[in-house]
Amino acid sequence: MKIAIFNDNRLGIVAGQKVSDVTTTADWDQTKPHESLVRLMENFDSLKDTLEKAAQEGKQYDLEEVVFRAPVPSPSKIWAAPVNYKKHQEEMNKQFNNAPRTIEELALFLKAPSSVSGPSDPILLPFKDRRTDHEAELGYVIGKKAKNVKYEDAKDYIFGYFALLDISIRGNEERTWRKSFDTFTPIGPWIVTADEIENPNDLSLKLWVNEELRQDGSTKHLIYDCYKCLEVASTYSTLNPGDIIATGTPEGVGPIRDGDVVRIQVGSVGEFSVNVKFADEN
Amino acid sequence: MKIAIFNDNRLGIVAGQKVSDVTTTADWDQTKPHESLVRLMENFDSLKDTLEKAAQEGKQYDLEEVVFRAPVPSPSKIWAAPVNYKKHQEEMNKQFNNAPRTIEELALFLKAPSSVSGPSDPILLPFKDRRTDHEAELGYVIGKKAKNVKYEDAKDYIFGYFALLDISIRGNEERTWRKSFDTFTPIGPWIVTADEIENPNDLSLKLWVNEELRQDGSTKHLIYDCYKCLEVASTYSTLNPGDIIATGTPEGVGPIRDGDVVRIQVGSVGEFSVNVKFADEN
Repeated sequence: MKIAIFNDNRLGIVAGQKVSDVTTTADWDQTKPHESLVRLMENFDSLKDTLEKAAQEGKQYDLEEVVFRAPVPSPSKIWAAPVNYKKHQEEMNKQFNNAPRTIEELALFLKAPSSVSGPSDPILLPFKDRRTDHEAELGYVIGKKAKNVKYEDAKDYIFGYFALLDISIRGNEERTWRKSFDTFTPIGPWIVTADEIENPNDLSLKLWVNEELRQDGSTKHLIYDCYKCLEVASTYSTLNPGDIIATGTPEGVGPIRDGDVVRIQVGSVGEFSVNVKFADEN
Repeated sequence: MKIAIFNDNRLGIVAGQKVSDVTTTADWDQTKPHESLVRLMENFDSLKDTLEKAAQEGKQYDLEEVVFRAPVPSPSKIWAAPVNYKKHQEEMNKQFNNAPRTIEELALFLKAPSSVSGPSDPILLPFKDRRTDHEAELGYVIGKKAKNVKYEDAKDYIFGYFALLDISIRGNEERTWRKSFDTFTPIGPWIVTADEIENPNDLSLKLWVNEELRQDGSTKHLIYDCYKCLEVASTYSTLNPGDIIATGTPEGVGPIRDGDVVRIQVGSVGEFSVNVKFADEN
């Protein structure tokens, strides 16, 4: 099932080129979309039939008619994987002359929940004189409380997947700072529930800037795959429903500039395009 | 006013050696203490008289009779200041042979909201073979939404202050990882509202391990003082009511071990003691 939040925080189910409005189901509260999503995830097994029925009967819109919002509005935290593809690690070390660092040495880092934005919102560049890069990633949302989860059980804690941009300023400051400005984590266009993704560790990842293909990878090259990321994250912190994991970006990372249009496409999950602007001109 | 959360998430007002139960005021919901606190902060001006009256009339307990909980239960984020005291910067560079780094170079870092624990909860050490340090700090909670706040206006956005321990594993991993394990941010014992703190940039900071005084500093030596931290944090991310700022630790940082008792005391704000245990024996 593809679960979307659209317009004024309405709940939608996407099928083909249509989205059905199912806002009146699942105890959905438009004033509290994140709490509503967490409740929906916790009760998904019993709600699934109701949602499917409501999708058939609800008002339908073409995808272009609505404005999609961040499908996970207010995660309580975002754990992200640094240099989680070998070739991206090589390009970073080559460009920035860093001592070679690996994900095993670095572990994970946090992005600010306030950096989350929707698939229709612009990326706002805070600096005119700092290189700011696109990083295309597969993201997922935690469906239930997780602590010390083993690799082989990790699948049970992932509610669903989405495309995620990990926007990053280059420089020597803390990684968590360089990636946490407002609008630096666009996610969308919706959540595809885990049962619809045959293998999250074999999804194509593509990113274009102004129609130029910049990143063309696959999650099959992840160093810590989706399940390993969850195992590691849950080893040192309790993961709560609604938390997000950003799995890392493949090679091809490069700068974005005012006026650019960035498009991300993740396998069967979905795609979205966002505009890039200077923050102070927004 | 000293605002506490105690026992089963009851709301308390502390005066002298007594805490008054005012749970039935301020629309307080014990099942949602963080949301209740945010609501209380947003409406504090109009609630203040009611709270004071309720404190006079409510059931009173001796401080030792109750169990205090984290006074900010679920912040949406925690920004923390690295090497924000000159002498602590020197001791870190000396002990770990790092290239000298300053807060101006590093900017701020995030701690996981799930690392917050209360002033009565133990610190749980995840590793038996990794050095894990105490860092005594002044913390504060944001009272209203803040973005691009100037230094001279920062005061208006701080609701209140508390003592904070920034527990830290030493090593080369991401700073945000080393400081984000569950129970690595004990806070308490209560929030002292900003109007009761004459100058937050002149408060003594003391920490004992098993009655041995380890840290003995003052926030007057902060490099980025309380207001500068808020200015910087709000420049790159929207601060939400209930977010926490950890202002950094003075010199004297050192390891804690299974069985230790750590006591922190912050000027007129308050003090608390926590036990240290291995996580897997808890």
